Amino acid sequence: MTTMRAAVYHGPNSVSVDEVPVPAPGPGEVLVEVGFNGICGTDLHEYFAGPIFVPDGAPHPLTGKELPLVMGHEFSGTIRDTGSGVTGWATGDRVAVEPVYRCGACPPCKAGHYNICQSIGFHGLMSDGGMARFTTVPDYMLHRLPDSVSLELGALVEPMSVAYHATTLADLHPGDTALVFGAGPIGIGVFQALRGQGIENTLVVEPSATRRAAIERLGARTVDPAAVDVPALVADETGGAMADAAFDAAGVAAAVRTALASVGARRPTVAVAIYEKPLETPLLELVMHESRIQGSLCYTGVDFEAVIALMAEGRYDTTGWVEKIGLAQVVEDGFEALHRGEKMKVLIDPVG
Amino acid sequence: MTTMRAAVYHGPNSVSVDEVPVPAPGPGEVLVEVGFNGICGTDLHEYFAGPIFVPDGAPHPLTGKELPLVMGHEFSGTIRDTGSGVTGWATGDRVAVEPVYRCGACPPCKAGHYNICQSIGFHGLMSDGGMARFTTVPDYMLHRLPDSVSLELGALVEPMSVAYHATTLADLHPGDTALVFGAGPIGIGVFQALRGQGIENTLVVEPSATRRAAIERLGARTVDPAAVDVPALVADETGGAMADAAFDAAGVAAAVRTALASVGARRPTVAVAIYEKPLETPLLELVMHESRIQGSLCYTGVDFEAVIALMAEGRYDTTGWVEKIGLAQVVEDGFEALHRGEKMKVLIDPVG
Ligand SMILES: [Zn+2]
Ligand SMILES: [Zn+2]
Ligand SMILES: [Zn+2]
Ligand SMILES: [Zn+2]
Repeated sequence: MTTMRAAVYHGPNSVSVDEVPVPAPGPGEVLVEVGFNGICGTDLHEYFAGPIFVPDGAPHPLTGKELPLVMGHEFSGTIRDTGSGVTGWATGDRVAVEPVYRCGACPPCKAGHYNICQSIGFHGLMSDGGMARFTTVPDYMLHRLPDSVSLELGALVEPMSVAYHATTLADLHPGDTALVFGAGPIGIGVFQALRGQGIENTLVVEPSATRRAAIERLGARTVDPAAVDVPALVADETGGAMADAAFDAAGVAAAVRTALASVGARRPTVAVAIYEKPLETPLLELVMHESRIQGSLCYTGVDFEAVIALMAEGRYDTTGWVEKIGLAQVVEDGFEALHRGEKMKVLIDPVG
Repeated sequence: MTTMRAAVYHGPNSVSVDEVPVPAPGPGEVLVEVGFNGICGTDLHEYFAGPIFVPDGAPHPLTGKELPLVMGHEFSGTIRDTGSGVTGWATGDRVAVEPVYRCGACPPCKAGHYNICQSIGFHGLMSDGGMARFTTVPDYMLHRLPDSVSLELGALVEPMSVAYHATTLADLHPGDTALVFGAGPIGIGVFQALRGQGIENTLVVEPSATRRAAIERLGARTVDPAAVDVPALVADETGGAMADAAFDAAGVAAAVRTALASVGARRPTVAVAIYEKPLETPLLELVMHESRIQGSLCYTGVDFEAVIALMAEGRYDTTGWVEKIGLAQVVEDGFEALHRGEKMKVLIDPVG
């Protein structure tokens, strides 16, 4: 049996690069040689405060897996082997992986919204994932990458799909005005998804000068909410109509408060953040403008395909916010550096 | 000049029954002899904590009026005179009054949503209202009452329209399951509006035994949230799909929290309450189910007509929750008794 290096999560504050067996694809599965794998906020939570999503003490009902696990749910790669019953995919195909296990039987699944499956599982959180040279995934998770989309971009399809999905819940049209709160990777994804869909009039609200500078390099207009009265600015620029949508990718009370005060009558604030605890929310703003807060969670395959198509058109730019590191550096240059706020997005190269 | 008795609001904790001039209808106005006028929570707020909506120190831009004012914005009556230019209305016509002044020019007005007009005014808060023998109103505020709808019911069209309007924002269909939080007048109105539209499967969540008993007499099924795990009950009864909509007519954090935990994937919690301050709101529930909180404010003429039509079909019942008092008793048997929680809805008879 051949082995490979992998970032294995053993429990709180314990990730090590171990030598583990190369998996073999079972029926309906393919073996993917990982191109790049991103680290996201969920991974940080597992590392510093977990296990949260990673099953501990009982196997996940859909995957049968539990701690210890190979982490990594944001990855691209190249197919190197196919299990029995796999059709339409071949060795050498370049793919982005949509890492969602779903039951197919719960009410949301039956309605087509498997992103809110009541038994949802993620490859790389509830099974061995992409922070390794190889991983095996069910073929229904595969999305083909055109030659024009690099494996680096391919590893960003997952987080960019989280952001793209949020934009599909906002009922926006070209010419509309949007506000994005928070210029982390999801805020950057919302900005780029909106621009890709022809929504050019977006204002990004971000208190960090570093993050404002990063998204400005991508072409965004930004504002510092500590220095500017955002609702007054929006009122002034829209003749009192206010924004056609707001996106909260910050997850803090100040962002929600400002979003609700800045969004127009009968318009949405889309919540695309993980709120660790209940926030003081001025619901009276919703009532006075008949506006709404709409939750957004993950993505489905439609969002993956839309993001890949925009990437193929050159609508996603990684300049200044995405860095690559080798697998051996995953803890210090990955988890710890992200936790210290020194980096925004890190892609792991499994052969590095 | 003839005079009449009226309940005049002079400022905080100061309402007196004064002798005031009978108004004369100006151009485009009619003189209404008030049948009944309801007291609502907004009136109580003005009395105990105001002036809030009532202009104090500067006249309202749409009405030119300020303190002191005759209160009363929930009323029915009979036309006794018409001003110049009024067509289609005659002395003797029985009406419910939709007491909304709107600018017609702001973005919500231009979109047809004058209930969220940026300069909105209410007859009886920003002008002399219905707690009097007579009042004058612009003819665009009038809705005709069929003979089968009593003047008592006519005075309830306004609060019942607040509740009806909320149901129009919930995207419900016959066969759907709804939750109503709070069995005060608005909760009662939501329950009756849903039933009138064929939504029979409603559960009313109310901690007060008195209020549960009142709405049960109208045919509602109720639950005490202090005694029952409401989300677990809803999960059990819906096979895990949860409620198709929730309505918060309570305005407290516990109701919002339970509503968000009980409503299904991609379904709304309609907020039809006045939230005096921001509440601890578990926004993560919205994200995990892609559900939403939708604000609802007041009504437009469409809601008034729908409520009057349901009233004409006998779909509204005042048994056990509506009481009548004479104008002379407005302070003690009206404001004070409502404030002590001894009554749910009080209609003032101006000749009593
Ligand atoms: Zn992630
Ligand atoms: Zn499912
Ligand atoms: Zn009222
Ligand atoms: Zn207006």
